[in-house]
Amino acid sequence: QAYAEFARNRDRLVAARAEVATCAISGAVGTFANIDPRVEAHVAAKMGLTVEPISTQVIPRDRHAMFFGVLAVIASSVERLAVEIRHLQRTEVLEAEEYFAPGQKGSSAMPHKRNPVLTENLTGLARMVRAYAQPAFENVALWHERDISHSSVERMIGPDATITLDFMLARLTGVVDKLLIYPDRMGRNLDRMGGLVHSQRVLLALTQAGVSREDAYRLVQRNAMKVWELDGALSLLDLLQADPEVSAKLDDDALAELFDLGYHYKHVDTIFDRVFGGNL
Amino acid sequence: QAYAEFARNRDRLVAARAEVATCAISGAVGTFANIDPRVEAHVAAKMGLTVEPISTQVIPRDRHAMFFGVLAVIASSVERLAVEIRHLQRTEVLEAEEYFAPGQKGSSAMPHKRNPVLTENLTGLARMVRAYAQPAFENVALWHERDISHSSVERMIGPDATITLDFMLARLTGVVDKLLIYPDRMGRNLDRMGGLVHSQRVLLALTQAGVSREDAYRLVQRNAMKVWELDGALSLLDLLQADPEVSAKLDDDALAELFDLGYHYKHVDTIFDRVFGGNL
Amino acid sequence: QAYAEFARNRDRLVAARAEVATCAISGAVGTFANIDPRVEAHVAAKMGLTVEPISTQVIPRDRHAMFFGVLAVIASSVERLAVEIRHLQRTEVLEAEEYFAPGQKGSSAMPHKRNPVLTENLTGLARMVRAYAQPAFENVALWHERDISHSSVERMIGPDATITLDFMLARLTGVVDKLLIYPDRMGRNLDRMGGLVHSQRVLLALTQAGVSREDAYRLVQRNAMKVWELDGALSLLDLLQADPEVSAKLDDDALAELFDLGYHYKHVDTIFDRVFGGNL
Amino acid sequence: QAYAEFARNRDRLVAARAEVATCAISGAVGTFANIDPRVEAHVAAKMGLTVEPISTQVIPRDRHAMFFGVLAVIASSVERLAVEIRHLQRTEVLEAEEYFAPGQKGSSAMPHKRNPVLTENLTGLARMVRAYAQPAFENVALWHERDISHSSVERMIGPDATITLDFMLARLTGVVDKLLIYPDRMGRNLDRMGGLVHSQRVLLALTQAGVSREDAYRLVQRNAMKVWELDGALSLLDLLQADPEVSAKLDDDALAELFDLGYHYKHVDTIFDRVFGGNL
Repeated sequence: QAYAEFARNRDRLVAARAEVATCAISGAVGTFANIDPRVEAHVAAKMGLTVEPISTQVIPRDRHAMFFGVLAVIASSVERLAVEIRHLQRTEVLEAEEYFAPGQKGSSAMPHKRNPVLTENLTGLARMVRAYAQPAFENVALWHERDISHSSVERMIGPDATITLDFMLARLTGVVDKLLIYPDRMGRNLDRMGGLVHSQRVLLALTQAGVSREDAYRLVQRNAMKVWELDGALSLLDLLQADPEVSAKLDDDALAELFDLGYHYKHVDTIFDRVFGGNL
Repeated sequence: QAYAEFARNRDRLVAARAEVATCAISGAVGTFANIDPRVEAHVAAKMGLTVEPISTQVIPRDRHAMFFGVLAVIASSVERLAVEIRHLQRTEVLEAEEYFAPGQKGSSAMPHKRNPVLTENLTGLARMVRAYAQPAFENVALWHERDISHSSVERMIGPDATITLDFMLARLTGVVDKLLIYPDRMGRNLDRMGGLVHSQRVLLALTQAGVSREDAYRLVQRNAMKVWELDGALSLLDLLQADPEVSAKLDDDALAELFDLGYHYKHVDTIFDRVFGGNL
Repeated sequence: QAYAEFARNRDRLVAARAEVATCAISGAVGTFANIDPRVEAHVAAKMGLTVEPISTQVIPRDRHAMFFGVLAVIASSVERLAVEIRHLQRTEVLEAEEYFAPGQKGSSAMPHKRNPVLTENLTGLARMVRAYAQPAFENVALWHERDISHSSVERMIGPDATITLDFMLARLTGVVDKLLIYPDRMGRNLDRMGGLVHSQRVLLALTQAGVSREDAYRLVQRNAMKVWELDGALSLLDLLQADPEVSAKLDDDALAELFDLGYHYKHVDTIFDRVFGGNL
Repeated sequence: QAYAEFARNRDRLVAARAEVATCAISGAVGTFANIDPRVEAHVAAKMGLTVEPISTQVIPRDRHAMFFGVLAVIASSVERLAVEIRHLQRTEVLEAEEYFAPGQKGSSAMPHKRNPVLTENLTGLARMVRAYAQPAFENVALWHERDISHSSVERMIGPDATITLDFMLARLTGVVDKLLIYPDRMGRNLDRMGGLVHSQRVLLALTQAGVSREDAYRLVQRNAMKVWELDGALSLLDLLQADPEVSAKLDDDALAELFDLGYHYKHVDTIFDRVFGGNL
């Protein structure tokens, strides 16, 4: 999903960059009184910019607002991935982990700790890049089609937003490149839930075996809740097989088959193809 | 300029609308385990939506963040025009005015007042639509690629942002349609400044007559400042013609010619053509 | 009004500063396991801080959120004053002006211009300080009562918000200290409106003379609108005195008396006393 | 900690409420021209409001900005607690859980699910109340000490921010009142980490036994890392007792004593007393 999301973000950034890459050399009130429009066209071409169709003393700031708005969206996408990694790294989950060099200190006071410091950092920085969009939006409504109140803002958010986001993208790339991934642990976490993840499929199978949806829901739920109460001592499959109302409709083999994870993989290729096309 | 700006805004809105018009029917974890991808494709086609290439339980929220970000930019463009009209309507300027029906009350306490109530209202509403972008940005980083924290936000900003902006665009259209414009007053305001608006052209003419830029600046400025001090009792042209250092370089006719407003209109057709193309 | 507003702001800042001036030396999870609470109390006293009643690894961030929220309010108050000065300085109003040194350049291209550059700058900077409040609010909800996502934010907004606001307050003080004020122009601007500012008093006098409020409004409004139409060629007083329906109720002297500005000054001392108390 | 935080929030709200509870009846430009200040004082007293020391046509909006800023802080505190509960409820942690009535449906498609729907909802609503502070800050800089752009904003955020926060506080109270807490699971989660939480105390004990801080850190870390690698098959205590470099400094009993959780409880009464005072 992140790949598709960042592909969208790349398109947005390219569009926003094109929006702000305009050139205005039209004089102090935009009338070309003392300078010919051909000068503007010539300079724009030389610098790889588009001619601003109509300017005042300044290029209209809706373009810049859009640009910083796009940076805010991209930063939020970085945060989404960072938050995901922070969750996967928490002690009780530990399905993935930021790279940790042997001998590296995770915490000055606690020798056992390995905090997701990079993704926590990215989470905070995303708040900053988001915040910079607000003054960029406020910059649009200049007085008399010009005033210089936008100038102090852009001198700050121009470097701050772009440098911060650049740093974020570089750091995120590093985190993903070196991410430690623990597939065994993923499997065990799924198991620890006693097969609860398959509850929906059981629900559907019961309805196809003639049970009303309401009854099917009640049957699955009462067994699922027992898994919670027993903290995984018995699995959902065990409990369902032992429940006479359930086994009257689905025998042991039929139930066991419903707990096959492979069932979820059958369309993986379709999804990969949709997202990556030929780029894998 | 507003025409070009709102043309850009229209393009942005079309793009953002397309971004959010996607369809996901991929099951509770996005694996198509219990439903074939062809069902999704069929429904999407029937509803005029695009298939979401990869979804989890929810459609990724960067799409919605972009949509509300675009609404914030458009609202800021509305504010720019509203602020311009508020300036033009102030008593001492009065170059344009919101329509005021005969007999309408401008203020309950002050019978003489005609406040720009509609554009002041638009200014406030722009603050609201801008504010709604912030929670939309924060919505991107859902936990575990799904949680429902975005739901309460979207139930509020979904209607609030779109209805408010729709109202703003309708109100702005009405204001512009019925706007009272006072070209005479515009001319008089330009005159009231004693011809100061032509100072740049005098500066350039002096340099072309062989005066250094620094000296030319000083010469024009010292006369321009006198116009301020005398509050327009003498015009800049009068003062320049009476300044021996200036008249040694440019005679009375040459100076008078520099005060021709027509000079600024020569490229109007070019600019109109750039902005409106064949759409006028 | 600004005096009263900044007195409030001073109180808010003192309160917010006290809120963040707390000290936590309670160990990595806040249990004082390896350090006695008396150490914390001793250090806090030495450093002029308050003891944090309960901390985790970090001091709770609602304190800092409040602090940056107060900075945002103060910056908005600075903007209010800056916007007022920008309005007063516009060419058609010119009731006040930022100090402009003899020989100073107001604009590189236009020798006659004297833009309110300092207050335009303050307007932009206010947008920045306001924006910094948003990530400070987001910092409150740390994970597990600690994570370090707030750290990157505070390393940026800590210096950026405080230094920017400090610069703003210093610059505003300079602008106000050296502000050029033109009372004559203020008088002339009031006159230019043909005495319209007294319309409310005429309205009240007519009602006291037995005219219904609705009729009184209509009578004053129809004359006030003529002042606008004639662009001040006749004053409101002239027109009212010539309106038979009005003069039937109020004779020329009675009307003239209603146009005395002094009427508005009678409670000035009361207001000054309320705001400044003994501090003038 | 939440108790202390919400006590602070209560104080902030009381202060902010007092700030906005002012009364201005001073005429359309605040000069008391047509109304005596005693009328204002009388009405204010009757309505339990404070007299606004100096007003224009409107009460200054820095007061309202502060009020909505405080609401944003309080909403962020609600979010902090909501995020904490969401973490505690996740399947792999499950130390606490929102109340779930027998037979209640947790998810329409998945009978086994018990999502923290109320706290996810609170998280989203906090984004809204935070967002409403921004237009309240922008409202401060009205033009000419009055314009009505703040009016449309306040008609929206007035009810929206207060009603949303009121709902949040009521919902949070309900969640906390009925929260299911699982102390056994908390103990097991601590154990599952193989006693790693005591690493800091071992570090300090080693340094007090004469080991340099750097060496002590290395010794503890190398054993702690093994706990991770073995996924808790051996505890930190087991490994430390088997590490000759460690056991040379601290014997088995000394090490075992360092793993006593009770050590962290010794100042609990002090902390409770600081936070609750006599209010327990």
